[in-house]
Amino acid sequence: MTVSRAAGTGPVLARALRILGAFSADHPAMTLSELARRTRLPVSTVHRLLAGLVEWGALERGDDGYYRVGLRLWEVGALAPRGQGLRERALPFLEDLSQITRENVQLAVREGSELVFVERIAGTGAVPVLTRVGSRFALTLTGVGLVLLAHAPVELQEEVLAAPIDRFTPCTVTDPATLRHMLADIRRSGFAVSDRQVTMDALSVAVPVHDARGAVVAAVSLVVRHGSVQAHSLVPLLRTSARAISRALAQPS
Amino acid sequence: MTVSRAAGTGPVLARALRILGAFSADHPAMTLSELARRTRLPVSTVHRLLAGLVEWGALERGDDGYYRVGLRLWEVGALAPRGQGLRERALPFLEDLSQITRENVQLAVREGSELVFVERIAGTGAVPVLTRVGSRFALTLTGVGLVLLAHAPVELQEEVLAAPIDRFTPCTVTDPATLRHMLADIRRSGFAVSDRQVTMDALSVAVPVHDARGAVVAAVSLVVRHGSVQAHSLVPLLRTSARAISRALAQPS
Repeated sequence: MTVSRAAGTGPVLARALRILGAFSADHPAMTLSELARRTRLPVSTVHRLLAGLVEWGALERGDDGYYRVGLRLWEVGALAPRGQGLRERALPFLEDLSQITRENVQLAVREGSELVFVERIAGTGAVPVLTRVGSRFALTLTGVGLVLLAHAPVELQEEVLAAPIDRFTPCTVTDPATLRHMLADIRRSGFAVSDRQVTMDALSVAVPVHDARGAVVAAVSLVVRHGSVQAHSLVPLLRTSARAISRALAQPS
Repeated sequence: MTVSRAAGTGPVLARALRILGAFSADHPAMTLSELARRTRLPVSTVHRLLAGLVEWGALERGDDGYYRVGLRLWEVGALAPRGQGLRERALPFLEDLSQITRENVQLAVREGSELVFVERIAGTGAVPVLTRVGSRFALTLTGVGLVLLAHAPVELQEEVLAAPIDRFTPCTVTDPATLRHMLADIRRSGFAVSDRQVTMDALSVAVPVHDARGAVVAAVSLVVRHGSVQAHSLVPLLRTSARAISRALAQPS
C-alpha cells in the first residue's frame, strides 16, 4: 500500500511519473501487469495510479485492456518549446533542405548527456538511418551529437568522455583524446562530420542552431551515403538552413 | 500543507496533473506564483510539486524563472496513438491534399464533447482559419466536428445539443433540431459541410477516417473560401485521402 510522506509529494508523484516513463516506442501499449512489472511497483499501486492518470487523460485504456498514452498528454507535450515549438518553427526550412538535397535531414537537441531527435525527414532513396522522432542517442556518434557535445558545458563533456562509449562500427570513435580533438575542431570550424560511426554506409554533416542570445540550442544535419559527396560541400547549405531556423526562433511566437 | 490520504493517490497526483493542465497555447510559460494563481493551489504546494515535475523532466525551469513544458513530456506525449501516431501516418496524404488543392487541410479527433486538431496545413494564399494543432473546438461548428459528432454515441450527441452553442457568425447553426437533421444527413451522405459557421469567408467540407474495424476515429477536411468552389466537388478528393489514411492506420506499426 502506498503511504505518502505527509510533508511532501512523497512517492506518489514519482511513481506516477515512473508509469508514464515506462511507455516507449518499443512499448507504446501495456496491460496493468506489464506496467507493474516494468515499473517494479505493486499491481495495486499501479492500478490506483492508472485510475488517476486515465481520469485526467494522461493515459487511455482501450477496449483490449491495454493502456496507451492519452491525447491530453500529447496536447500538453505539444507545448514543449524545445520539442514541438522548435519542430514547428524549423520544419519549413528542413523540408526545403530535404527537397533540395533528397537526403536525410535531422534536427536534434541535447537532453542531459544524450540527444533527442526532434525531427527527421527521410530522403527519397536516401541511405537508411536508425533514428526516429523522439528517440535518444549518444552524443559522440552522430554529426548532430558531436555539435551538441562540442557546445555543452565542459563538465558534461568530461562526464561523457569518461563513460564507456558503445562501438557501432569499426569506424566508431571511442578514444577520449581523439574525441576531445574533434570537439575542439568542431568549435573552431563550426561543423561536425560523423564518418561511418553509426553504420558503415552513412556519413553525417551537422551545424549548430543558435537562439537569439547566441547559445547553441539545437543541431541540424544531412545524412548521406558514404562516398557519394564531399562532406565539406554540404556545409554552406546546412549553414543557410541553420541560420534561417535561428531567425525563426528569434521571432516572437 | 499537502497531506495525502494514506490509502490512495490522494490529492498529490490530481494536483500535479492540474499544474500540467494549466499550460496552454496562451500560457506556455509561467512563474511559480502564476501557476499557483491559475491552479488555485497554495504556493508551497505548487513549489513542492514543481520540484518533482522538473526533476523528472515533465517541466523545465528557465534562467528567467519561468516554467515551461519539458522535452521529456513531449517525448512521452509523442507516443499517443491518437495524437502523434495518427498524425505521422496521415501526414503524407494530408500533404498531397494540400499540394493538389493549395487549400487548408485539417485532421481532427473527438475528445469527449470537443474536437482536437491533430494536424493543420495552411494553404498558400488560402482563406485564414482560426485553428492550431493541439487546440480544441466545439463539435457543432466545423466540418470535422460535425462528422465526429454524427458518429459519436447518441448520449454524447444529446449532451452536446442540450448545451448552449456559441454563435460565431450569423450563419452559426445553434438550433438543436436543425443540427439533429444535419447529423442524420452526414451519416447518410458520408460528408459534412460547415458553411460560414466559424467565419463569414470560410466553408469546410469534411469526411470520416475509419480504423480497421470500421469505427470513425478521425475526420479530415478542406477549408476553402466561401463561394470559390462547390462544396460537393471536394468530396471525392477528400474521400480518396481519408481512405488512404484509413489504409495506413490498418498497417501494423
